[in-house]
Amino acid sequence: MNLGRVVGTVVSTRKEPVLEGIRFLLVRLLDEQGKETGAFVVSADGVGAGPGEIVLTAAGSSARQTAMTKDRPVDNVILAIVDEWEIGGETQYVK
Amino acid sequence: MNLGRVVGTVVSTRKEPVLEGIRFLLVRLLDEQGKETGAFVVSADGVGAGPGEIVLTAAGSSARQTAMTKDRPVDNVILAIVDEWEIGGETQYVK
Amino acid sequence: MNLGRVVGTVVSTRKEPVLEGIRFLLVRLLDEQGKETGAFVVSADGVGAGPGEIVLTAAGSSARQTAMTKDRPVDNVILAIVDEWEIGGETQYVK
Amino acid sequence: MNLGRVVGTVVSTRKEPVLEGIRFLLVRLLDEQGKETGAFVVSADGVGAGPGEIVLTAAGSSARQTAMTKDRPVDNVILAIVDEWEIGGETQYVK
Amino acid sequence: MNLGRVVGTVVSTRKEPVLEGIRFLLVRLLDEQGKETGAFVVSADGVGAGPGEIVLTAAGSSARQTAMTKDRPVDNVILAIVDEWEIGGETQYVK
Repeated sequence: MNLGRVVGTVVSTRKEPVLEGIRFLLVRLLDEQGKETGAFVVSADGVGAGPGEIVLTAAGSSARQTAMTKDRPVDNVILAIVDEWEIGGETQYVK
Repeated sequence: MNLGRVVGTVVSTRKEPVLEGIRFLLVRLLDEQGKETGAFVVSADGVGAGPGEIVLTAAGSSARQTAMTKDRPVDNVILAIVDEWEIGGETQYVK
Repeated sequence: MNLGRVVGTVVSTRKEPVLEGIRFLLVRLLDEQGKETGAFVVSADGVGAGPGEIVLTAAGSSARQTAMTKDRPVDNVILAIVDEWEIGGETQYVK
Repeated sequence: MNLGRVVGTVVSTRKEPVLEGIRFLLVRLLDEQGKETGAFVVSADGVGAGPGEIVLTAAGSSARQTAMTKDRPVDNVILAIVDEWEIGGETQYVK
Repeated sequence: MNLGRVVGTVVSTRKEPVLEGIRFLLVRLLDEQGKETGAFVVSADGVGAGPGEIVLTAAGSSARQTAMTKDRPVDNVILAIVDEWEIGGETQYVK
């Protein structure tokens, strides 16, 4: 799983019918201190993540193991909104 | 998922029989401002994307979860034609 | 599989319900001498790995082949706590 | 999918029994103008590709969706021999 | 598939029970001339590969398509011991 920050939304009307109802968010990937790495991914949101929130994402076939993404052509999903993380006992980020 | 721009077509007559009828498009990957990154992928098109259009692509086994690609040896698919996306409330691209 | 060192913990309360009970650890990837590469991953822990321990991780759909991760949207898992490894007969690391 | 050029053959007698009969080709990956990128992959050939031919390859689990590779431990397959491709209406390669 | 050279062994006693009996080897990835690239992977060995031998490895879900790795959380497997390969008719490596 990766850490990322929700920064935007991607809108599409002409698409695979099975994608109907999925919200696609633009997520910038973060390093372990919470800084943006310059990479980003478009991720399906099933937890109601909002702009600026830090999230945990899963890629590949694992992205299809949620109720919302089951059997749908989605290769990245937001799994969770991150409350905090620590490294070596020191908090790197708190919501 | 990734953002990409359709720029070309790949043609092949001698191929796996199960690929018959699939259109293969050459898609340049984009950064979050819509600029080309220099990377590209050959993607199966199931939404009728045309030259110059910006699309959303899925990779890996997720590329086989559309009606057209089901059980076919395709590792990248065009999921949608992108209408627009915004970052931090500012529109980066509108079709 | 990759070698990594457990350095931290990621906490999340609002998440996919199917993730309930899974511990997410921050794991720094190592080179073959055991030095950190600068890359990291968030991994699900099913073996009770603790801070500082060197672990073996699996990525992708293989991360879902443990009792804990079966059918759950997890793309990285800690498989084992590493006791030692050698290269060319020379020990690189002993726990 | 990726574009590649067949440049060689890999031979092995002691191998997983399920690989019996599969031809392994060395394929150099190409950029969109058809130049070699410096990267290569060993790919299973099911279409009878020969030295110098430009091919379309699929990676990951999608590589197992051909008659030849079904349920076999193959993570890259040659899907097709490319006849030509164009970018922006200009032909980049013709066989 | 990738070419690699077996250089070491990874030992672990506290691990996922389903991994019992699998040998984990440290494999350095090779370029097409047989030189080490600097990258490595930990791979499950089902063909009895020994130190110094050049092997063919498969990654991802394809690594679980051997008798030994079926349904086990393994994302890389040694498929074969390479006897030789050639490029453009010139032998690059002979065992």
